[in-house]
Amino acid sequence: MHESTVRVRFCETDMAGHVNNTSYFIYLEEARGKFFQEVFPPHLNTGSRFILASTTCDFVSQAYYGQSLIIRSWISKVGTSSFNFSHSILVEDTKEEVAKASAVLVQFDYEKQQSAAIDGELRELLEVYLDVEKVRRG
Amino acid sequence: MHESTVRVRFCETDMAGHVNNTSYFIYLEEARGKFFQEVFPPHLNTGSRFILASTTCDFVSQAYYGQSLIIRSWISKVGTSSFNFSHSILVEDTKEEVAKASAVLVQFDYEKQQSAAIDGELRELLEVYLDVEKVRRG
Amino acid sequence: MHESTVRVRFCETDMAGHVNNTSYFIYLEEARGKFFQEVFPPHLNTGSRFILASTTCDFVSQAYYGQSLIIRSWISKVGTSSFNFSHSILVEDTKEEVAKASAVLVQFDYEKQQSAAIDGELRELLEVYLDVEKVRRG
Amino acid sequence: MHESTVRVRFCETDMAGHVNNTSYFIYLEEARGKFFQEVFPPHLNTGSRFILASTTCDFVSQAYYGQSLIIRSWISKVGTSSFNFSHSILVEDTKEEVAKASAVLVQFDYEKQQSAAIDGELRELLEVYLDVEKVRRG
Repeated sequence: MHESTVRVRFCETDMAGHVNNTSYFIYLEEARGKFFQEVFPPHLNTGSRFILASTTCDFVSQAYYGQSLIIRSWISKVGTSSFNFSHSILVEDTKEEVAKASAVLVQFDYEKQQSAAIDGELRELLEVYLDVEKVRRG
Repeated sequence: MHESTVRVRFCETDMAGHVNNTSYFIYLEEARGKFFQEVFPPHLNTGSRFILASTTCDFVSQAYYGQSLIIRSWISKVGTSSFNFSHSILVEDTKEEVAKASAVLVQFDYEKQQSAAIDGELRELLEVYLDVEKVRRG
Repeated sequence: MHESTVRVRFCETDMAGHVNNTSYFIYLEEARGKFFQEVFPPHLNTGSRFILASTTCDFVSQAYYGQSLIIRSWISKVGTSSFNFSHSILVEDTKEEVAKASAVLVQFDYEKQQSAAIDGELRELLEVYLDVEKVRRG
Repeated sequence: MHESTVRVRFCETDMAGHVNNTSYFIYLEEARGKFFQEVFPPHLNTGSRFILASTTCDFVSQAYYGQSLIIRSWISKVGTSSFNFSHSILVEDTKEEVAKASAVLVQFDYEKQQSAAIDGELRELLEVYLDVEKVRRG
């Protein structure tokens, strides 16, 4: 499992006094960016080869300005040309979960303008972070 | 069905040259805000009574700077204390769909700090925008 | 003078209950984008030829969710290779001013990677919106 | 002088391939937030007592996705009821300056709804970070 941390910024809150729902997707994109940076060797880490096809977030409890949030990320599925991230966002101090999320990414060949197979080194690295049990346990 | 329009802003794009995934959630929140403002009479339209419990977005095609996007919104379910929005985002000029989305909102009683029943005028208004067929057809 | 309008979005507010300072710069960039789109003919309106060199915003009064804001924009100076925008942001309903702002843009030749002269049709169009008096009067 | 660090996020870039101008103001607000959190003792660190009255940013060079940026912050003036921050944003790796910025903050008494004097412990703490020489040298 991969972990990264963000500190909630003032502009990421809204007039309801808590973190705005749109800010969670900023954190999730950043967590995946750090995953790619830390897990993939440079020749795989081009960043632009994956297209976000779908994302979901369940807002479990509220988060607030100044809190440090941990984003736990793991792979829940590796398909032919796509793979799925699962995420859990926790308050660092209390370990309270504030959100559960997931994302489907598609490997895309920009030259051919079509999806491309996930195989070789890329598939092996993703499978290191595959945690189907965790998915099943929920 | 309710419709609102946004024009894609420069800062809502990213270095991939298209609209960033996080920007879609800005458009969706804004579409629901306009729905509440236009559909609900002032005494129902407090804005803070609904909590976003979950949201999903499928990114169907890319959107670009300067485009006008139409966000179509309708109600796909009215439950005891929650209701669901469905959204479809289209390019105004071409009517190409760029995203499908949904959101679960919970009616919340801040005084009692618990979810509250959706009934009376609120339920009636939501049911005007209920389109189960559209949901079934996809 | 050029005018454009924005509606304050929920996610553009912060936990202080008003529009966050960073949101004003979103509105200002959008106002300049619309200026370019509406004032410049297509062959001048490439969007990427101008680089923002500097920007300032004075926050005069608070703005709130749901308000329509008018952004007035005019040219306060045309130099050799740069020009200055002045902006005033007003609440549409009350005409109360919420912010005064300015921006320096540099014409940039990406091929030569250096600033380029503002002349010909571009200079003429900018001078139509030049309002030095307004600048002097403040 | 106070220093904080941010990592440029993907959604903070724009279709021009670099960090969007509006993102710099996010970094600057966050730098001031960390200054308040780290420099002020809890009883002074309410966060909501200071109102941003004005801010300026000069964009010196471009910043890119994934870079770590250092935001240097110091106090350039302490007035009767307001004080000024100066900021310099550098690329951590190269120490290249990407932006110079400043901000005027006003101490505000929300109960009396008017500006309030900066004195006592607050003035002393701000003066620790006062660097007029640095301001004069530019």
